[in-house]
Amino acid sequence: MKNSAVKKSVGEIAAFLKAEVVGDKDQFIEGIAPLDEAVSSDISFLSNASFEKALGESNAGAVIVQPELASGCKATAIIHPDPYRCFAAISGWFSSEPEFTSGINDSASVDASAIIADSATICEQVVIGPDVHIGENTIIESGAVIQKGTVIGSNCHIYPNVTLYHDVVLGDEVDVHSGAVIGSDGFGFAPDPKGERKWHKIHQLGTVIIGDRVDIGSSTTIDRGALGDTRIENDVIIDSQVHIGHNCVIGEGSALAGCVGLAGSSIIGKGCLLAGGVGIAGHLTIPDGSQITGMTMVTKTLNKSGSYSSGTPMMQTRDWKKSAIRFSQLDEMAKRLKALEKQLERMSLKD
Amino acid sequence: MKNSAVKKSVGEIAAFLKAEVVGDKDQFIEGIAPLDEAVSSDISFLSNASFEKALGESNAGAVIVQPELASGCKATAIIHPDPYRCFAAISGWFSSEPEFTSGINDSASVDASAIIADSATICEQVVIGPDVHIGENTIIESGAVIQKGTVIGSNCHIYPNVTLYHDVVLGDEVDVHSGAVIGSDGFGFAPDPKGERKWHKIHQLGTVIIGDRVDIGSSTTIDRGALGDTRIENDVIIDSQVHIGHNCVIGEGSALAGCVGLAGSSIIGKGCLLAGGVGIAGHLTIPDGSQITGMTMVTKTLNKSGSYSSGTPMMQTRDWKKSAIRFSQLDEMAKRLKALEKQLERMSLKD
Amino acid sequence: MKNSAVKKSVGEIAAFLKAEVVGDKDQFIEGIAPLDEAVSSDISFLSNASFEKALGESNAGAVIVQPELASGCKATAIIHPDPYRCFAAISGWFSSEPEFTSGINDSASVDASAIIADSATICEQVVIGPDVHIGENTIIESGAVIQKGTVIGSNCHIYPNVTLYHDVVLGDEVDVHSGAVIGSDGFGFAPDPKGERKWHKIHQLGTVIIGDRVDIGSSTTIDRGALGDTRIENDVIIDSQVHIGHNCVIGEGSALAGCVGLAGSSIIGKGCLLAGGVGIAGHLTIPDGSQITGMTMVTKTLNKSGSYSSGTPMMQTRDWKKSAIRFSQLDEMAKRLKALEKQLERMSLKD
Repeated sequence: MKNSAVKKSVGEIAAFLKAEVVGDKDQFIEGIAPLDEAVSSDISFLSNASFEKALGESNAGAVIVQPELASGCKATAIIHPDPYRCFAAISGWFSSEPEFTSGINDSASVDASAIIADSATICEQVVIGPDVHIGENTIIESGAVIQKGTVIGSNCHIYPNVTLYHDVVLGDEVDVHSGAVIGSDGFGFAPDPKGERKWHKIHQLGTVIIGDRVDIGSSTTIDRGALGDTRIENDVIIDSQVHIGHNCVIGEGSALAGCVGLAGSSIIGKGCLLAGGVGIAGHLTIPDGSQITGMTMVTKTLNKSGSYSSGTPMMQTRDWKKSAIRFSQLDEMAKRLKALEKQLERMSLKD
Repeated sequence: MKNSAVKKSVGEIAAFLKAEVVGDKDQFIEGIAPLDEAVSSDISFLSNASFEKALGESNAGAVIVQPELASGCKATAIIHPDPYRCFAAISGWFSSEPEFTSGINDSASVDASAIIADSATICEQVVIGPDVHIGENTIIESGAVIQKGTVIGSNCHIYPNVTLYHDVVLGDEVDVHSGAVIGSDGFGFAPDPKGERKWHKIHQLGTVIIGDRVDIGSSTTIDRGALGDTRIENDVIIDSQVHIGHNCVIGEGSALAGCVGLAGSSIIGKGCLLAGGVGIAGHLTIPDGSQITGMTMVTKTLNKSGSYSSGTPMMQTRDWKKSAIRFSQLDEMAKRLKALEKQLERMSLKD
Repeated sequence: MKNSAVKKSVGEIAAFLKAEVVGDKDQFIEGIAPLDEAVSSDISFLSNASFEKALGESNAGAVIVQPELASGCKATAIIHPDPYRCFAAISGWFSSEPEFTSGINDSASVDASAIIADSATICEQVVIGPDVHIGENTIIESGAVIQKGTVIGSNCHIYPNVTLYHDVVLGDEVDVHSGAVIGSDGFGFAPDPKGERKWHKIHQLGTVIIGDRVDIGSSTTIDRGALGDTRIENDVIIDSQVHIGHNCVIGEGSALAGCVGLAGSSIIGKGCLLAGGVGIAGHLTIPDGSQITGMTMVTKTLNKSGSYSSGTPMMQTRDWKKSAIRFSQLDEMAKRLKALEKQLERMSLKD
């Protein structure tokens, strides 16, 4: 990906990364690319030794490599113990994201009582309700709707067609991707006391409080609290299509991958990793630093941190059907096993 | 959550709930809060005996409690056999939801042929197509798109950025939360007759018919029927991120929790409860009153009502790996068990 | 579903389908309906022999049937070996989808640098950024946002409230349903090198490239590549609520059903079928022509094509709990089984 605004020498880049150069420090870099696609004006990196072969064949102008792999590098080498982190550090230079000019687009509908920083950007067709606050340098992209009383910090980026319900609070440097919905009503209904097939809605009186440097993926939904609030602490990262029920708490620095679903009042500790498709039942606690592997079903509180899993391994369907039938016979199998053990014990005693 | 518009005496509240008061009937209540956060102008409630300790410590002005717990209440007690239902009944008083004034916002695009009740509210940037009908007191929030011929009853609330495709029918008192899509094309394609890697689209000619008092969560998607319609009966409640395929029927009063997925032509009976993440294969029937536990995979019609489950329990990953490998050997294990039983039977006969 | 614009004789329809007629070729058809709902101006079809009884009772004006079932048809029979494909072929005639007039609606916000074909339609409240290209006959429906530099081919249909991020490429005849998001940032973060609970964002520098005749369901999310692109090849069909992570490749003609989730860099071959709720871990490969059954968890590369599954069968909850406990004891059960076998072997040797 090439961004015409970027042109830096290998020497400048190495200085920024506090890395050593072996080769031409004056080579100019204008883009970043994978080893096998890079040309002489591109920088690349090798973070995985299994791609070492590509290192000897790449036409990149410079490659960020670990010291022990530098000798295999055809291009100028920028030597650093953590090339992937270097990539993270410089990736922003090459972004081709749209640039925004501060101000309020004429097609936006902004309530007169909203307080919007001069350095903020309100794009086309945005709707901003009464008493909304929007901080410095924050960008609200086209089609987003921000309801009454919601407060957004500085340096946030709200992508197109996001909806923030009323009285939601976002810290600073929060990114919310398209289609995400924050502050919708939690799923709170009381069954009918006379046993009729009706539900009585419980008004959801809390809100959603989100810390700083939180990233929220596309089409993710976070419900407001029933009484009390749903809370996402600082430095939490949340992927796409995640659902977070009312009154959940997600601890600092935790990561939730795509399609995770949390029922109401789940408490996720700090520094937890939830892999894709994990489901968490309500009213339970996951301790700090826990890891839950993909598609695991969590139905009770974990008493200690660790790595947890559920499910069965993938098999050829024909073989799986056999195992699946046996699964439904497992209790009977266990009892038969026990009976055999007893029988053998009796026989041994007789001997 | 405090709503400045609410100020009621304990006596008034108890009269509304048909409950008895022990304590000061003249205390004024302006908010509602959990026991541990409430102040003297708040009402609170105790629905779960395990929080009884908080009852003796709460600074709430009044607490709704069951008769048997009233003696432990430091605050004025409002005594009722079902405090949770009382909470549901009064929760709406304390809502801080935005209020709407009827009328059509200037920034909305409304087709001249649409018929919109005078008491309805059409918010900013809404798009309403030809021949749409919108009933009394219904609110269509910002950025929602309502296509040609769709009919929405009275007292409905369509939240921001909802999409209703053409010719959809909604009854009265239907809530649809942000990002939900109703009436999108079902997933209907015929494979190529010559075996090429192509798909031939089947136009989806039906629509979606939704009854009264239905609640639809954020980012939920309900596809229109192929021939005939997808139908959601009265008093159904649907959480966020649910997908309902074409020609499904959801029976009266059923509840679908978050992230449930229904393939096409699934028929869910009345009064069913589907917990979070349940998946239902197509063309099958779930009888009235069934309960399906979280993340269960339903691949065949249920012949009788009851509670159904699938999956495996969560374990520490290290232990789970051992069980998972054994799962793939289950059929062989069952055969070895059978062989042992036969061998022992023969040995016993010899004895 | 009746479309007042359609009126065709049975003879005309049969000629179009290259099918034989038994009965009245002059009967006029104005609608299409299921056998049990059809009236004399409707055509219907029988694709499933289990509905044969309805064939003898239907009031349809004509029914498309296989030769071997034609004798049971009360109505005029249109005889064809593949009635379902015939239905697919004529279903578009009866669609009541809104019709669009080319041109740009006054309420849309279109950047002056965008290049839009004269035959394209830009509906109400659409936002189109700089340097966007929109091809012939393409329809962009209300509330959609198309960001800077995105290129959309001809005969595409972008439904309401879709978001296409910057620099995305769509081929011809691509349908994208409401709420879908294409080109949002992949979930790329580097952990903090000092071990703090922080994440360092990796800017997502690639984009999403989509081929021709691709169908994308409502609320589906497709992330842009980190370096290099996410690619959806020609003739891929994707249902609702699917998530596709950064740098995935979906091969030609593959079908992904609802609620499928793909972690980053998953490579799906050509002609694959992924049933509802399947989850695919990252950096792995599914060979051409593979089938994965519903809710399967795929955690490693498949070495050969075939049908694959995981999970356990649904059971009554009471019985399932017993099997589930036994699952967690499986490794111990297997060891006890082995011990019994050894013991019996020793006993047999002694005999």
